[in-house]
Amino acid sequence: MEINLVSDTITKPSHEMLQYMFNAQVGDDVYKQDPTVIELEAKVAKMFGMEAGLFFPSGTMANQTAIKLHTQPGEQLIADKYAHVYHYEGGGVSFNSGVSCCLLDGNRGMITAQQVAGAINDPEFYHSPLTSLVCVENTTNKGGGACYELQDLQKIKQVCDANNLKFHLDGARIWNALVAKKQDPKQFGKLFDTISVCLSKGLGAPIGSVLLADKATIHRALRIRKILGGGMRQVGYLAAAGIYALDHNMERLTEDHRRAKEIAEVLKKVNWVASVEPVETNILIFSLANNVSDTVLIETLKQKNISISSMGHGKLRIVTHLDYREVMHTYVLETLEKLIF
Amino acid sequence: MEINLVSDTITKPSHEMLQYMFNAQVGDDVYKQDPTVIELEAKVAKMFGMEAGLFFPSGTMANQTAIKLHTQPGEQLIADKYAHVYHYEGGGVSFNSGVSCCLLDGNRGMITAQQVAGAINDPEFYHSPLTSLVCVENTTNKGGGACYELQDLQKIKQVCDANNLKFHLDGARIWNALVAKKQDPKQFGKLFDTISVCLSKGLGAPIGSVLLADKATIHRALRIRKILGGGMRQVGYLAAAGIYALDHNMERLTEDHRRAKEIAEVLKKVNWVASVEPVETNILIFSLANNVSDTVLIETLKQKNISISSMGHGKLRIVTHLDYREVMHTYVLETLEKLIF
Amino acid sequence: MEINLVSDTITKPSHEMLQYMFNAQVGDDVYKQDPTVIELEAKVAKMFGMEAGLFFPSGTMANQTAIKLHTQPGEQLIADKYAHVYHYEGGGVSFNSGVSCCLLDGNRGMITAQQVAGAINDPEFYHSPLTSLVCVENTTNKGGGACYELQDLQKIKQVCDANNLKFHLDGARIWNALVAKKQDPKQFGKLFDTISVCLSKGLGAPIGSVLLADKATIHRALRIRKILGGGMRQVGYLAAAGIYALDHNMERLTEDHRRAKEIAEVLKKVNWVASVEPVETNILIFSLANNVSDTVLIETLKQKNISISSMGHGKLRIVTHLDYREVMHTYVLETLEKLIF
Amino acid sequence: MEINLVSDTITKPSHEMLQYMFNAQVGDDVYKQDPTVIELEAKVAKMFGMEAGLFFPSGTMANQTAIKLHTQPGEQLIADKYAHVYHYEGGGVSFNSGVSCCLLDGNRGMITAQQVAGAINDPEFYHSPLTSLVCVENTTNKGGGACYELQDLQKIKQVCDANNLKFHLDGARIWNALVAKKQDPKQFGKLFDTISVCLSKGLGAPIGSVLLADKATIHRALRIRKILGGGMRQVGYLAAAGIYALDHNMERLTEDHRRAKEIAEVLKKVNWVASVEPVETNILIFSLANNVSDTVLIETLKQKNISISSMGHGKLRIVTHLDYREVMHTYVLETLEKLIF
Repeated sequence: MEINLVSDTITKPSHEMLQYMFNAQVGDDVYKQDPTVIELEAKVAKMFGMEAGLFFPSGTMANQTAIKLHTQPGEQLIADKYAHVYHYEGGGVSFNSGVSCCLLDGNRGMITAQQVAGAINDPEFYHSPLTSLVCVENTTNKGGGACYELQDLQKIKQVCDANNLKFHLDGARIWNALVAKKQDPKQFGKLFDTISVCLSKGLGAPIGSVLLADKATIHRALRIRKILGGGMRQVGYLAAAGIYALDHNMERLTEDHRRAKEIAEVLKKVNWVASVEPVETNILIFSLANNVSDTVLIETLKQKNISISSMGHGKLRIVTHLDYREVMHTYVLETLEKLIF
Repeated sequence: MEINLVSDTITKPSHEMLQYMFNAQVGDDVYKQDPTVIELEAKVAKMFGMEAGLFFPSGTMANQTAIKLHTQPGEQLIADKYAHVYHYEGGGVSFNSGVSCCLLDGNRGMITAQQVAGAINDPEFYHSPLTSLVCVENTTNKGGGACYELQDLQKIKQVCDANNLKFHLDGARIWNALVAKKQDPKQFGKLFDTISVCLSKGLGAPIGSVLLADKATIHRALRIRKILGGGMRQVGYLAAAGIYALDHNMERLTEDHRRAKEIAEVLKKVNWVASVEPVETNILIFSLANNVSDTVLIETLKQKNISISSMGHGKLRIVTHLDYREVMHTYVLETLEKLIF
Repeated sequence: MEINLVSDTITKPSHEMLQYMFNAQVGDDVYKQDPTVIELEAKVAKMFGMEAGLFFPSGTMANQTAIKLHTQPGEQLIADKYAHVYHYEGGGVSFNSGVSCCLLDGNRGMITAQQVAGAINDPEFYHSPLTSLVCVENTTNKGGGACYELQDLQKIKQVCDANNLKFHLDGARIWNALVAKKQDPKQFGKLFDTISVCLSKGLGAPIGSVLLADKATIHRALRIRKILGGGMRQVGYLAAAGIYALDHNMERLTEDHRRAKEIAEVLKKVNWVASVEPVETNILIFSLANNVSDTVLIETLKQKNISISSMGHGKLRIVTHLDYREVMHTYVLETLEKLIF
Repeated sequence: MEINLVSDTITKPSHEMLQYMFNAQVGDDVYKQDPTVIELEAKVAKMFGMEAGLFFPSGTMANQTAIKLHTQPGEQLIADKYAHVYHYEGGGVSFNSGVSCCLLDGNRGMITAQQVAGAINDPEFYHSPLTSLVCVENTTNKGGGACYELQDLQKIKQVCDANNLKFHLDGARIWNALVAKKQDPKQFGKLFDTISVCLSKGLGAPIGSVLLADKATIHRALRIRKILGGGMRQVGYLAAAGIYALDHNMERLTEDHRRAKEIAEVLKKVNWVASVEPVETNILIFSLANNVSDTVLIETLKQKNISISSMGHGKLRIVTHLDYREVMHTYVLETLEKLIF
């Protein structure tokens, strides 16, 4: 029994999901003739109360397209210092859009309206980049799965409106936030110019993200997706997995959250852990005490068939997911409790 | 019976291909843990005698990545005036790489070593862009499926070597060329710095292209693919289709070529066709006589359940493919013969 | 007596121009506090009946800024195949703006409304770049100093308006056209979204170009100029030269034109010239007969203290200018007449 | 008597400098035929013991060119959080080079080798941008004119060498550092791949910067300068000012430094100043006590013919320079001492 807690991206389709994929109707999506892709795009758009959606091979491409849609080269976006778009998209913000990042010192990856307001460059002072976009991530990845309160996002939206800024949500793990906070996705649809959502993390589809916006923006997004090389042919087989995942794997995210919290409780008690960050969803970040190093802990767990990963700077990360089942969980809790350094 | 001769991209997997796809072993390809993707990459690399391959969601992204690998912004590539990278990749050459195109007036999309030699800017004359790359397409799409003689490519390679230029093959339909000319793919592997091949045209896989190069170049390509958003998770299901296609659908391309030639013979005889370009593979381009317009012909055929497309400037295109079967072919030949304007 | 007919960029300020420069009032133009720069910008804008002007260190930067102002990365501009922006600005169109060029086969560097109309990509066909800008050059450099008829530009403008395209004039040698065709600059101001004019060619100022547009566009241009590094401090000394040049060196361009035509008449008669292109302004392009090569002619003239340059492909170029005086002209005519190969 | 302490960029040439400028020998520098530009480039290169120099219309363009020379799009540079290249070059790092900035929390604009070492992304982890360049500023502008110890730069250089990073010095005010620290410019020439130096700040030339590097790098820089539009014609008049400034205005920078320190001593005593940052050169940054606001202080001084500027966030800046003479200084000291809020 191999237990992989490195990421929720590693899940594999269940037999039922595979059957559903196998039976999908497909067409050439580059000509927008794939009925399953069209169904998925419409389904997600409807959930969020937005006009239209567009399927992408990755969340990175969905985010990068959104940033390009809202900016001109030379402009600046505002994000948290932990932002995925800054750290983990290969430098795409400047490669694809010629845009720079103004990074804020947020709380577990979450920024405030006040911070945003203080970071906007004077648009008349042409020596500095023109601020044109705010990006938030929900839940936050590097921030340990933290979720925004809706009202805090509404306040940021007000700052955006007052300063002529666009507002993008990197919703790679938005499903976890919706379930954890019992929020209505339509509330998010009202706040953002674009939202990217990912189907291949907690929901368990093999690949795929959807970008949501109004129709005119999605029409422009089609061109950007083409330029980046994201136009795919009979990709409905994968879109089908997304449809299945939305219908079957949403509510069960609460299980992932429960398990992450239970692991946290154990870690708080053992003597080789210095601190555990608050757990709201399926990501758990903790720091080690002086009696053990990253490398040693990771290797020790590896020997016991449990994989976890380092985030650098003395932090480690555990992520629960669809393929992390109760029997594994029991074993993990026991193993961690018994571990001595 | 709907007969679609618009493009060979519209084919759908057979039952056998689908079975093969859904039995594939998969993993997270972003971490390079998908065994089926790795198998496909190795298989194609071996065919061409090249060191390594990388799977892409589209031929556009494979080509765009190759161009980026070989250039710095401000530089110039040389290609035929019909080149797919210039016309049909959304302006990606300049968007993704900041590179301009020097377009040559080739023969049915094919350029000569002499033309290339004459188009290279003096590297010391810094007012003009630095020429750094030559791209050829084989078979040529807008050139009507024409195929290069190997020796003509070897001569271009010599010019590239003498002038410190990289050499890229857009092999979206290289399979058709290999079959039509009975060429050895390893001969191509020796000539080019990078080759992109497509699995979703004549071979009939739903999506996917592979970029081939030496190991160091593919290592760099991984980073570019990430930036463009082409890193996908459990994508082995689609890679499996490529493996199946290579094993089962190569030789039968001769059928597509025969059918395209037979259609050409009919078109040469009817009074509403002015001229038919030479047919070497599965693409057929023809011009209409004055007694009928593009729109009328396309609409007339549509009524008879046959779809073909216009290329603009009075030219029409017919493309044969895996899903165009003999019974359809008989009907198409008869229909075209009988058509009167 | 060294006679340089290589380019009209090589002129040096007269004693009077230098005196005028020396006495200029200056300030920090980055803060827009240089009164002489402001005077020059206003003076040129007024001449063309446009709202505002902006001073640039080079014509290349003025053109590149204009292209950036009118485009987004991935878009396409239309220009003649000889266009300076494509050939002689270092590949800046794609480097600075991520834009590609659709080059038309014009007449001596001049394109027609019909050609432009035929080159616009269907804006709904997102596989091809979006066409967003037309650039014309007047007079044409590589086209041999040819000048447009105003009505031909008006027709292009109509095509632009009908297709939502911006229209830029590279007026590096617009002064020659105005004098040769007796045209009113205000007619040009009505046609174009942006015009770049150069002060350091026929007019004889040491450096500098001015970009003209409406106020909002020039406001945006200030930001682009800053990014490219064209913001200069006490640059009024050079702007002063431009003011002096406009006041004193316009009308005398007719002398340059007369001399170029007189040289052409001589070249038409000698047996070592195959053909001479029509001369409208101060540029003369000719081709050699078989009895002499570029290199030999250039070297032979060099021995006689006359410098001219090759354009490649068997063409040579002669450019008359402010520092090419009558005594030199007499000598050049005699020398060319006597030259035997 | 107007006293401008806003910036050292606002100085105007003395009569002697003007005389020297207008006696300069000039030529077409785009063809590298301007002897005065060539003399200046060689003179500065020799000072720093570097192989070659290139003249630029602005420090922004010199810095931007250096960044482009050392990077590919998508890569990342490391700099202090106050860096001019990040804040005041219009977003050019991402516009011109497609590069992102990793900003460090330095001391008055100065970073350490240890900070740099900790900020380098793992080159094998392709999700994050490849780190390829370190930029330092000396003296620091936004850091209040602070100067590096040579040994601290040497340590950063070691980190660069160990990690295959290029090292660029933004030496806009390097002259102030050289004079203040009694350092030898040749020591700097040994450490950096490129150095930009500015002639139009403390030295008092109207415009211009010089980029220094080895010959091969400067050869490539010529192409980048052309693309950005920095190639100028008879610009020797301005280069001459730089030569004059280097010969006459270096040593007197100590006067600027003395005056800045004397102003600081006064500010430390008055009750409306909360704190004064250490003064090493000609820049002085201070914060106000609660009894007066930025706006009120600036306006009050303006009434007394003294201009200073706000840096935002409650900080104010005073810059001494060539045109700030002793008589003004006496008046400023007296005025500040007497000022009551």
